[in-house]
Amino acid sequence: MSLLFHSTAARLPVWRSLFAADGEPLIEGEDAVTDPAGVTAIACWVPPADLSRYPNLRAVISVGAGVDHLPPLPDGVALSRTLAPGIEAMVRDWVVMATLMLHRDMPAYLEQARAGDWCSHPVRLASSRRVGILGMGRIGALAAESLQSLGFEVAGLSRSERTGAVPIFAASQIDAFLARSDLLVCLLPLTPETRGILNAKTLSALPRGAGLIHAGRGAHLDPEALRAALDDGQISAAMLDVTDPEPLPQGHWMWRDPRVIVTPHVGANTDAAEGARHALAVMRALRDGTPLPGLVDRARGY
Amino acid sequence: MSLLFHSTAARLPVWRSLFAADGEPLIEGEDAVTDPAGVTAIACWVPPADLSRYPNLRAVISVGAGVDHLPPLPDGVALSRTLAPGIEAMVRDWVVMATLMLHRDMPAYLEQARAGDWCSHPVRLASSRRVGILGMGRIGALAAESLQSLGFEVAGLSRSERTGAVPIFAASQIDAFLARSDLLVCLLPLTPETRGILNAKTLSALPRGAGLIHAGRGAHLDPEALRAALDDGQISAAMLDVTDPEPLPQGHWMWRDPRVIVTPHVGANTDAAEGARHALAVMRALRDGTPLPGLVDRARGY
Repeated sequence: MSLLFHSTAARLPVWRSLFAADGEPLIEGEDAVTDPAGVTAIACWVPPADLSRYPNLRAVISVGAGVDHLPPLPDGVALSRTLAPGIEAMVRDWVVMATLMLHRDMPAYLEQARAGDWCSHPVRLASSRRVGILGMGRIGALAAESLQSLGFEVAGLSRSERTGAVPIFAASQIDAFLARSDLLVCLLPLTPETRGILNAKTLSALPRGAGLIHAGRGAHLDPEALRAALDDGQISAAMLDVTDPEPLPQGHWMWRDPRVIVTPHVGANTDAAEGARHALAVMRALRDGTPLPGLVDRARGY
Repeated sequence: MSLLFHSTAARLPVWRSLFAADGEPLIEGEDAVTDPAGVTAIACWVPPADLSRYPNLRAVISVGAGVDHLPPLPDGVALSRTLAPGIEAMVRDWVVMATLMLHRDMPAYLEQARAGDWCSHPVRLASSRRVGILGMGRIGALAAESLQSLGFEVAGLSRSERTGAVPIFAASQIDAFLARSDLLVCLLPLTPETRGILNAKTLSALPRGAGLIHAGRGAHLDPEALRAALDDGQISAAMLDVTDPEPLPQGHWMWRDPRVIVTPHVGANTDAAEGARHALAVMRALRDGTPLPGLVDRARGY
């Protein structure tokens, strides 16, 4: 009963020492597998192509929060994702930064700076701006709390029943939710229902001049709908941490448009130690027959 | 007993209606003064050049938070500044944004974006970064609270005794304070003691690779010391909302250096209604003989 490490080599030393400290065996890559039947779990971002090689595989452990990139897994193989507290805080920090950057006109100031142009625009109070968060999971709830404490008027949209510090709109109320969102934050998981959700229709339902903060997945956004909304003035600016494809090709208009700021999917990265500790917890649960931490419902997609 | 309005014409309609609602007379500019002896207070950013024209002047009311730009006032003329809650929150928002932008490597990502270069750098937790706030007045305390709630390890430096949520270093402990400040935030007032405080000596006392967030006054910073510290790697990047002179001349190296992001003194602007309400409170205090709100100690400079 062993875990196969199938991830970035740079993380291996941390995993090795934490697994050794726990007395938990660790197979350091597919080349090191001597008995495929002994592989119980695989920790990876993308799993090995041929999982049928491992007849006793019971779990795949994603070292990140997203699971939309993973192929279907064989029957009986569970999927667990690492949702370490660090990941949530990191994405929250990016979202708070990006929201403040749009609130405080940074795209315009950065463009002016390129021309050496000292020209101020009126400053608005955060309390005069309504932030709408699409996707109120753990990261969304954390971002909502931080943005609310800065004074923003925050609401969320969620398909699950939620209670919390901010008003939550149901999925059926999306039009009302969009109509009150001066700054729209997307933190949705990518599922068949959410693919392409940031399209001409939804962008046009926002208040005129709204800003878009996108830390979901690239495939949520129709880039041509964004371009049209920017040209029209319906959207004033956008902060994008995710694109489709990734990397965003050099020369893409979104790199060059001063109204769009792209960061290269750096909302969060899993700390190696947090990832290893999560994997150890999964191994313990597999041995003890207790529920797996971070278990993903693949029908829902997260 | 009247107030002379000597500020931006765009703000006048709001002042007019709030003064009218209070039954308080308002003289709408120097050209409208018929009896100089009736002018008790002047609301302005920069006062009229010849204050000797107003023999019964008792107060100058600054419509902003800063007072360092004001000339000496005649004996017996008090200085009151508008420190509206909105101003503090606006500067706090800029400081939180700028701190997050340095924490999350935005200067590097913005430079990469210009080249269409998708390349990520390791993400760090806010809790791994120590923020030091120079100047723990009301704005500093508010910024400290917000940054601490995002997880940063925050401390302040103040020449006054302070109690609060974060550790406060005394002015005599500045070396220890700088040595623990990965991200240094300057919110000091400009006084003879603080002029030029961001110099080669203080920048070199920071941890190597530190970031500078400056929302004090341009004359706090020696730009050539900053340039040398950037070239040397001692400072990794800087966010500046204030420069000396202002406007920063077109073509200045700070506009062009990708490690420096300049915004044109937009930390806050006084909301017209907040400024008018403050002026009304000063007029009431002058009539009642009670202490003036926002009274500035000119010997201290704030």
